[in-house]
Amino acid sequence: MRATRFFISTLKEAPADAEIISHKLMMRAGLIKRLGSGIYNYMPMGLRVIRKVEAIVREEMNRAGAIEMMMPVVQPAELWQETGRWQKYGAELLRVKDRHGRDFIIQPTSEEVITDVARSDIKSYRQLPINFYHIQTKFRDERRPRFGLMRGREFTMKDAYSFDRDVASMQVSYKIMFDAYVRIFQRFGLQFRAVAADNGAIGGTGSHEFHVIADTGEDDLVYCPTSDYAANMEAAVALPTTTERVAPTQQLTKVSTPGTVKCEQVSELLGISLDKNVKSLVFAVDGTEDGSVKKQLWLLLLRADHQLNEIKMHKVAGLANARMATEEEIVEWFGCVPGYLGPIGTKLPINIVADHTVAMMTDFVCGANEADYHLTGVNWERDLPLPMVADIRNVQAGDPSPDGKGVLAIQRGIEVGHVFQLGTSYSEAMKATFLDENGKPQFLQMGCYGIGVTRILGAAIEQNFDEKGIVWPAALAPFSVVLCPMSYDRSEQVKTETDNLYVALQAAGVDVILDDRGERPGAMFADWELIGVPHRIVIGERGLKEGKLEYQGRRETAATAVSVDEMVAFIQEKLAA
Amino acid sequence: MRATRFFISTLKEAPADAEIISHKLMMRAGLIKRLGSGIYNYMPMGLRVIRKVEAIVREEMNRAGAIEMMMPVVQPAELWQETGRWQKYGAELLRVKDRHGRDFIIQPTSEEVITDVARSDIKSYRQLPINFYHIQTKFRDERRPRFGLMRGREFTMKDAYSFDRDVASMQVSYKIMFDAYVRIFQRFGLQFRAVAADNGAIGGTGSHEFHVIADTGEDDLVYCPTSDYAANMEAAVALPTTTERVAPTQQLTKVSTPGTVKCEQVSELLGISLDKNVKSLVFAVDGTEDGSVKKQLWLLLLRADHQLNEIKMHKVAGLANARMATEEEIVEWFGCVPGYLGPIGTKLPINIVADHTVAMMTDFVCGANEADYHLTGVNWERDLPLPMVADIRNVQAGDPSPDGKGVLAIQRGIEVGHVFQLGTSYSEAMKATFLDENGKPQFLQMGCYGIGVTRILGAAIEQNFDEKGIVWPAALAPFSVVLCPMSYDRSEQVKTETDNLYVALQAAGVDVILDDRGERPGAMFADWELIGVPHRIVIGERGLKEGKLEYQGRRETAATAVSVDEMVAFIQEKLAA
Repeated sequence: MRATRFFISTLKEAPADAEIISHKLMMRAGLIKRLGSGIYNYMPMGLRVIRKVEAIVREEMNRAGAIEMMMPVVQPAELWQETGRWQKYGAELLRVKDRHGRDFIIQPTSEEVITDVARSDIKSYRQLPINFYHIQTKFRDERRPRFGLMRGREFTMKDAYSFDRDVASMQVSYKIMFDAYVRIFQRFGLQFRAVAADNGAIGGTGSHEFHVIADTGEDDLVYCPTSDYAANMEAAVALPTTTERVAPTQQLTKVSTPGTVKCEQVSELLGISLDKNVKSLVFAVDGTEDGSVKKQLWLLLLRADHQLNEIKMHKVAGLANARMATEEEIVEWFGCVPGYLGPIGTKLPINIVADHTVAMMTDFVCGANEADYHLTGVNWERDLPLPMVADIRNVQAGDPSPDGKGVLAIQRGIEVGHVFQLGTSYSEAMKATFLDENGKPQFLQMGCYGIGVTRILGAAIEQNFDEKGIVWPAALAPFSVVLCPMSYDRSEQVKTETDNLYVALQAAGVDVILDDRGERPGAMFADWELIGVPHRIVIGERGLKEGKLEYQGRRETAATAVSVDEMVAFIQEKLAA
Repeated sequence: MRATRFFISTLKEAPADAEIISHKLMMRAGLIKRLGSGIYNYMPMGLRVIRKVEAIVREEMNRAGAIEMMMPVVQPAELWQETGRWQKYGAELLRVKDRHGRDFIIQPTSEEVITDVARSDIKSYRQLPINFYHIQTKFRDERRPRFGLMRGREFTMKDAYSFDRDVASMQVSYKIMFDAYVRIFQRFGLQFRAVAADNGAIGGTGSHEFHVIADTGEDDLVYCPTSDYAANMEAAVALPTTTERVAPTQQLTKVSTPGTVKCEQVSELLGISLDKNVKSLVFAVDGTEDGSVKKQLWLLLLRADHQLNEIKMHKVAGLANARMATEEEIVEWFGCVPGYLGPIGTKLPINIVADHTVAMMTDFVCGANEADYHLTGVNWERDLPLPMVADIRNVQAGDPSPDGKGVLAIQRGIEVGHVFQLGTSYSEAMKATFLDENGKPQFLQMGCYGIGVTRILGAAIEQNFDEKGIVWPAALAPFSVVLCPMSYDRSEQVKTETDNLYVALQAAGVDVILDDRGERPGAMFADWELIGVPHRIVIGERGLKEGKLEYQGRRETAATAVSVDEMVAFIQEKLAA
């Protein structure tokens, strides 16, 4: 490609609404162009990267036996009403009426449509397993679109949907997709981690997220450096920090702790380390209107230096619909203002849940349910019975790994893929059955598998950039090599050598761009460093006098002189590395 | 590809709503699957054809120097308001509100978005000419979607948009696209015709339509078999059928013609051939409410065997907003009921337009503006002055070609491409300018160029089918070759030979599918004839005894025995043909 036949549009400054580095660099490098809030044109330079992502995804999906098709972007509401997602999906679902007043949605995902295809076209177990995928435009009406392609409204996803005869077979299909995802992210050349995940609203029995590792990531990934345990923060099991509760050594004592509504203040006042304190969080579960179920208050106990995980909390039996209690409710049930609450001596009976670590504590401190007082030397099964124990906290670095093979570490990641075992949640809702060997109808066992194609660009940049711009991994770069001739339009020799090299590289199958725009060297170099092309070759009269060209890799700080004759082989070696 | 790893879903009967052959065959062959009115899933078999269309379009666009990008499917209404199309586009424009109540549309076409890109990113004449294209999902909310992908609501289009510094340069860009289109349709292997077209609502100065020739086409294409003149019915110039008016031989005579409200009846009653009769059509142009412009009635005169072309009629000065006159208006202005109207002796003054052919007539017949009476022997410039003369009729086969190089013929076509010279209609509306050599802002000269990617499938089938199913041209077939083994799962020899041939054909780069489904021969052959794969090879024990396989081309009625060793070369020769 010659630059004058392509479209290059770089900016010195990123627009003010670009908050994160990938958004800034994508705008500055001219990969995308904003059309509206969370809506972008994919400019020619950006589309080249998207196509490289798509090509790798497509190859690996095909290799894994998935079959490509396309589904409508505009989908009838009826299907979404069958599964109840027309109601449940909320404001993120872009709804539209056609000229006849019929309801449609712009696809945010396509479980309903593929299940509709399956229920009419899959008739027999002999057609199973089968896996359909599509790479298409999707739309989610985010409340606050930001971060460019990382949290846009319109984006490109690859979604695959597997159909199987039973759970065991579905899990085989799931494993095939999991392995394909590993190959895909390896081929991207990105550092990534697959973590066990919570299934969330989509339902089903098992799932993993694929994250690109980046300090700027929004998600905490929990992993064990000495084993293969990995999970996201919701799914990571928080074991107690000790496996045994030691014997009490202190008496239960009520102490005056005026003005200490925070555990840190109590800890400091009493000279007791923070991890000997227990914090009390209060949630309420409302009763039914007919009074058959009464309102309950729940006291959750966590070690003072631990964090509640709300998703885990909601999974505790009885707490699915829990909400933060109001101060009024707290005073009514505890007989005390917040800041001095604890499990002993509440005014009304309270449900108590202790985190696993709290259940192992001895001689701990908690509120006395009396303003300006705490209790010290509190001990389970002596001063109060052990309540319900559950995992309700975030893992912390240094916690024991659930597989017993080390301690956990935490790193930040950007979610770019997600694989789910859906089971029969959609096939039951939509009555998608097949006939088994005995001619009996059975619900199809489903899995679904997404990759955020356009999100990959943002994640790749968050992981690979420097002060000059993007540093694309080889597989994703819009061009592999850029030729930067000095005085292309004024030096016959430079022009001839550049054109010869350009033709030779193209003949060798190298994805090369020749910058024939006639820009000054500084501006030209800055553009290509910003755009992030991995390999740069400078062709100048001075070097040519000695038969040399200048090569510099995007991550390198100095150029290497390479003879004209050897340059093609030199580049091929670099690309093969 | 092995059939068991792919998805084949054929139907014996087409659904009742499929009216035309391409729709029926696409449904039966499992290329598409209906999701809603005018909305289809592109099933794996259909998607393969779409990808082949896209690949050819993309290669030729790139070769012609156009640059690929992608535009959002969901576009802000503001841009459409700038050009006025938010109002003008009507009910076909699918409008949607986001969660904040802001207006958006689902792209039916993208002139606004690309002009928005151009006005911000094209700053200098040095960036021109430039041509952007995209291949994407579009949506038009057709009042009555039908004919499958031929008139669906959601479809795939390739649209290109060129930007130039002046009209001459824009016409060069237009010619480059025109030539690329010719190459594209040649590569598709379809019979097609490019015809001059009316620009219609999109505005601008010149355009051509590309039609696939098919008896079932909706459009009439006018062309001259002995020259390169070609136009659609709206743009085809209807010359007078004779170049000279001969001298009168008859007297003007009022004759009694009771009960003859149609020209055919008058012609029969009087024993005068139909082409000596003139028919009178009456249109009204309403006045303004303030009375500054008064209502006018217009009498249009056509030879009785000719047809009015309303688009041409509306181009006549003064008739842009003409509508059919009511019977009441006719009686008021002509003093006579319809059926006996004519240009002589109207009650009130009428504007008259004669078609070019009428202006050349001598001794003709027309209504006498008196019920049950006609005039015969009517002659221009003797009995009445020659009125305004204009081309207001459809061309007929046998009419003289406007280039003077023969007579015109008419054939049916399906519009699949359209190229337009837009000029500055969009750039002026959206203030898209560039700085010329003198640093002065100038409006960008635009062109736009569409191909209906998914529509090509329907058009190709309308041109290429037989009683067994689709007959794909080589370039568009979902697979080039199908291997049909007899008893693949029971005969070791058949399995081995089939697998060997499959591997050998794949190694030779042939797009081959192996039907390993274990279907009976009759069902297997019927499926592949319906799907329309061009080349079939049958592998059976009987033939293998003599070292032979059976080859049959899709258009052939009998098979040819080809030796096992020669089959790959034989197929390569067929594919190269």
